[in-house]
Amino acid sequence: MRIRSLLLAGAVAAAPLAATPAFADEGMWTFDQFPADKMRADYGWAPDQKWLDRTRAAAVRLTGGCSASFVSDMGLILTNHHCIASCLQDLSTGENDLLAKGFRPGTREEELKCPGQQAEVVTSIADVTADVKAAIGTLTGADLVKARDARIAEIEKAGCTDLATTRCQVVTLYGGGQYKLYTYRKYSDVRVAWAPEDRAATFGGDPDNFNFPRFSLDASFLRAYENGKPVKPAAFLKWSPRAPQAGEATFVVGNPGSTSRLFTAAQLAFEREVALPVTLAINSELRGRFLRAMEESPERRREGQDELNGIENSLKVFIGRTKALNDPVFTGKLAAAETELKAKSAGNAAIGDPWAQVEGAMTARRKLYLANRFIRPNGSLYGWALTLVRGAAEKAKPNGERLPGYTDSALPLTEKRLLDARPVTPWVDELYMSWSLSKAREYLGADDADTRLLLGRESPEGLARRLVSGSKLADPAVRKALWEGGQAAIEASTDPMIVYARQLDARDRELTKANNAEVVAPLTSAAAKLSDARFAAYGAGVYPDATFTLRISYGKVAGWMERGKEVAPVTTLGGTYERATGAEPFDLAPAFAANEARVDKAVVYDFVTTNDIIGGNSGSPVLDKDGAVIGAAFDGNIHSLGGNYGYDPQLNRTVVVSAAAVQEAMRSIYPSPALMAELAGKKAKKTRK
Amino acid sequence: MRIRSLLLAGAVAAAPLAATPAFADEGMWTFDQFPADKMRADYGWAPDQKWLDRTRAAAVRLTGGCSASFVSDMGLILTNHHCIASCLQDLSTGENDLLAKGFRPGTREEELKCPGQQAEVVTSIADVTADVKAAIGTLTGADLVKARDARIAEIEKAGCTDLATTRCQVVTLYGGGQYKLYTYRKYSDVRVAWAPEDRAATFGGDPDNFNFPRFSLDASFLRAYENGKPVKPAAFLKWSPRAPQAGEATFVVGNPGSTSRLFTAAQLAFEREVALPVTLAINSELRGRFLRAMEESPERRREGQDELNGIENSLKVFIGRTKALNDPVFTGKLAAAETELKAKSAGNAAIGDPWAQVEGAMTARRKLYLANRFIRPNGSLYGWALTLVRGAAEKAKPNGERLPGYTDSALPLTEKRLLDARPVTPWVDELYMSWSLSKAREYLGADDADTRLLLGRESPEGLARRLVSGSKLADPAVRKALWEGGQAAIEASTDPMIVYARQLDARDRELTKANNAEVVAPLTSAAAKLSDARFAAYGAGVYPDATFTLRISYGKVAGWMERGKEVAPVTTLGGTYERATGAEPFDLAPAFAANEARVDKAVVYDFVTTNDIIGGNSGSPVLDKDGAVIGAAFDGNIHSLGGNYGYDPQLNRTVVVSAAAVQEAMRSIYPSPALMAELAGKKAKKTRK
Repeated sequence: MRIRSLLLAGAVAAAPLAATPAFADEGMWTFDQFPADKMRADYGWAPDQKWLDRTRAAAVRLTGGCSASFVSDMGLILTNHHCIASCLQDLSTGENDLLAKGFRPGTREEELKCPGQQAEVVTSIADVTADVKAAIGTLTGADLVKARDARIAEIEKAGCTDLATTRCQVVTLYGGGQYKLYTYRKYSDVRVAWAPEDRAATFGGDPDNFNFPRFSLDASFLRAYENGKPVKPAAFLKWSPRAPQAGEATFVVGNPGSTSRLFTAAQLAFEREVALPVTLAINSELRGRFLRAMEESPERRREGQDELNGIENSLKVFIGRTKALNDPVFTGKLAAAETELKAKSAGNAAIGDPWAQVEGAMTARRKLYLANRFIRPNGSLYGWALTLVRGAAEKAKPNGERLPGYTDSALPLTEKRLLDARPVTPWVDELYMSWSLSKAREYLGADDADTRLLLGRESPEGLARRLVSGSKLADPAVRKALWEGGQAAIEASTDPMIVYARQLDARDRELTKANNAEVVAPLTSAAAKLSDARFAAYGAGVYPDATFTLRISYGKVAGWMERGKEVAPVTTLGGTYERATGAEPFDLAPAFAANEARVDKAVVYDFVTTNDIIGGNSGSPVLDKDGAVIGAAFDGNIHSLGGNYGYDPQLNRTVVVSAAAVQEAMRSIYPSPALMAELAGKKAKKTRK
Repeated sequence: MRIRSLLLAGAVAAAPLAATPAFADEGMWTFDQFPADKMRADYGWAPDQKWLDRTRAAAVRLTGGCSASFVSDMGLILTNHHCIASCLQDLSTGENDLLAKGFRPGTREEELKCPGQQAEVVTSIADVTADVKAAIGTLTGADLVKARDARIAEIEKAGCTDLATTRCQVVTLYGGGQYKLYTYRKYSDVRVAWAPEDRAATFGGDPDNFNFPRFSLDASFLRAYENGKPVKPAAFLKWSPRAPQAGEATFVVGNPGSTSRLFTAAQLAFEREVALPVTLAINSELRGRFLRAMEESPERRREGQDELNGIENSLKVFIGRTKALNDPVFTGKLAAAETELKAKSAGNAAIGDPWAQVEGAMTARRKLYLANRFIRPNGSLYGWALTLVRGAAEKAKPNGERLPGYTDSALPLTEKRLLDARPVTPWVDELYMSWSLSKAREYLGADDADTRLLLGRESPEGLARRLVSGSKLADPAVRKALWEGGQAAIEASTDPMIVYARQLDARDRELTKANNAEVVAPLTSAAAKLSDARFAAYGAGVYPDATFTLRISYGKVAGWMERGKEVAPVTTLGGTYERATGAEPFDLAPAFAANEARVDKAVVYDFVTTNDIIGGNSGSPVLDKDGAVIGAAFDGNIHSLGGNYGYDPQLNRTVVVSAAAVQEAMRSIYPSPALMAELAGKKAKKTRK
């Protein structure tokens, strides 16, 4: 059910590198390269520039890792429930469990701010490829990365002067084939306006996640504020709570987080042989630890639920990826594509053999992988401590010499994430830390120098307990004082988590540097050549791998064939009642049960489309030909899990909660007349452009 | 640290199928095919028949999954501590924790019986290949398996008439290339005679497990009894507590549980692509659940420790196997061996294409795997319930028509395991059951017919709680009454676990039948042909895959090169004190700490040899040229984990606790003068033959 952007703990930015032209409906296209001709050939119609511009202007990126869209002129934002679950969790207490009960404020004044959350709308995209490539020149190794990052920092700084309302970000496309400067209008005060009960969104739980048929109300509304007032967005989408029709064209507009479709064989081998088995094992263990901890008390169940959902969701993704890369038919297709690109590039001296370069980089990565993965213990408190320790050092440097995340353009969000008040649950932090330290020792070995640096003579459990119970960083005022106190405050701090981060930071930086020199740099220059090879072979019909930046995919409402049987493309609200067993996670949300007689069971609940999406697309508006919202994407089917590496038009499906179901829920289950009126544009003045 | 025989939950008996001749020191040889010429060529010496016969007669198999040896004429048995840890656990209470404290009875009368444990000594091996193959004839599918099993049941029944003291077992070698009747003298009353503190054996815990250098006193003594008196074995080994010498020849005599060295490419692909990823993920989760549950109270820590050790041990094995099968160099060698055997067999019409037959069988196995794996929920209570339900049905049938495990020759051990009093820890049973049911739902899918059969409308957690809390099967008297009551008692039972097993058994049998017909039968006939191919190509220089039957391996004391540095072949007792940090699991055993001043720190503690072993070899005596015991094998190094598929003479090592260290511990740490005298043959009359 969750296609929120997935960040592998300790994952190193991976450069995507090869490609063939897209299948029908395949592709997460950038707005400046929408394949209108291709769509027109398949569908007899394609959106024009005006349609695209209008849609783009209403599309929202949520910095928590999701997508969304403005749906009223009063700053109302549609997204998934699972995209705001951790916000609801942060705002909950044992007495007032907003996650379980949902949250429907009676008035706008009661809407609650989500800590750490920021909404962003792209306002322009500029090509800075020549600029960045010139800075790189013929550099290699650590120098290449340094020069590239410095130039990017300067471009971003020059692009956005008003950091309170804008954000500039240079995006690396095709792993280094293109660089584009994205400018965003940002809204850093985002509040919850409407959320159903958690069980309404998570009905079926992990068993139903990434499956279909689904019966999930995975939708919520946020509202963007500025200066204490609802934002009047430049554009918003029309709300269209109607039943989707089989075969009708659909668009998904959102921010797919990351894909690996341009990986060479050497990169895929690394994933299959090294990264995925480790990830599978350690994340499964983490899941087991959480599951059991949550059985200890109702309070722990409440406190751990959102974390567990995230863990189970990403684990299922990793299991799906493992399955895909262990399917000889699937990998055979990827290998054939690479063979074809090599053949087409043969004899092109300007391209040379970037595949060999990638192979060398992956050999280096195999050596550096475990240390890089485990040098940074998990847990909110350690994360903050590291930000504080690094921030103090980095802020003292010139902009172009800082680590990414600490440049002038990146600092405001880093600071917001650090300083926004967010509750820390000590047992959760301790569990994460103790788990990641014990996995470090397991994979690096008890006698490894990094293990010794991490543990000293302590046990993972003892160290985690000492640090979490002794640290005061859960208090945002303490973090603020350290952040503002700079290097002197950090050096003077005796907070055990700060002391610990100080102890690890040098080695962490050293590992990053080695990785930049031996992995990132060769991948970056190989990517530029592979990008050239690809464009030479296939023209512009190649989309870049996903980068958690705005993309558009087109497709249609359609089921698929599963073991000889057709899976219907829609479910209805009534299906929920048939599927419910009363036993978790197939127990009805209380309001669903209480209002059964009022519900129109024929209303379409969830539906599937052929749109090509991936984690990060969660909450993306699903639009019809008219550009109206008919749903919010929240999941993929089980086949979509291999979508990280390749799209299969026969099987990959996007799962959407229909606007019709949200509308019916607001009518009969969670009565919300004011919001319905706002969505219908009845009270709000229309400002749609 | 644990190389006890490993049983994959729900694993289907896998037929081993191809091979090349053995490397130096490679091979787990049957006693009737010891490669004396080969050893003589390498070592200038090899044991004669008398040496082999004497050794074989003193070698002990423990039905719990370990190996051992008689070391006195009063039935004293040397094995590993981890082989009796669950016995100590079963005999412990919160007030008297025998696992933590160890157990050193003051007199023989205080020695305590291990529930479910049986010691067995091979007395003869007879070739019954022609007999079994004649029964199979040209049959295929389910008929093949039925005829084979029926004939085996009859051979076993005819072979052993005194079931109280003997056990007959037909062993399938080379996956079906040979069948041999093993006759055992059995001892079903086995008691603990000496055990150190658990921490002395598990020092370094999971981090040090399957690593070297090791500092582990993984040794214990049992004593076999008959009619209430210590057994006078037909032979016993001389105890030689001397330091092993680098380069000296060593023999390991024991019962390696299972290897897959003769697997074809199709079988290896199934392991790598299907079985191992599932196993890795679900067992890691189980580990996480246990780890957390044990943090809940000291009592749970005590109750769960032995289970957790077993889970972590097998998980490490699976991780090692995954790594081996994802190492292109390693798998390249296996592929080359298969290519060579195919080339040597080309044109031999009698052999045909068994590889294709195996491939067909593995295609079927891929379809049946998950259902077979998950149809039998984990947990002691369910295991007993299924034995009771099946026993009632099977005992009513003629011997040749029963399921394996319920034939006349197999019933005594099945019955012993069912009826011996053994404590059940409800939370452990509930954890296992709830875990395996939830994994069944995850992998089969919520809508799968088998999931519905397993869960009905209950949740895994709710169902497990209801069954475990409602069942009376923890009481051995209840099990005995049901066992003796036969079909009528089972049908009348309202015990929820019995009711549940009755509900699942038909489908469980159906799945076994399908697996026999589509997987086991074709693998069996392919194995016979591959066995012919192998013998035609390489003569007798090929050993069968391990089958938890007696084998002998030869090798020598030797370290190895690790990343350019030599690993010394021995550690000393003093090293323990240097390695100790005070933090679990690197905390000294209390008696080690208390007696530090008395310990001779120069005594060799653990050592490594090139012997080729695998899980099941735990507790195997390590013999010198004279046939005297210089240690007990208890572990392999990290490289040995790929040993399931192939042996690398440069890297694979057996890890042994020295007799010298055990002797020193009995002198200075756990004073045991009577046992030392017995081992030295001072009080006991020598009867060595």
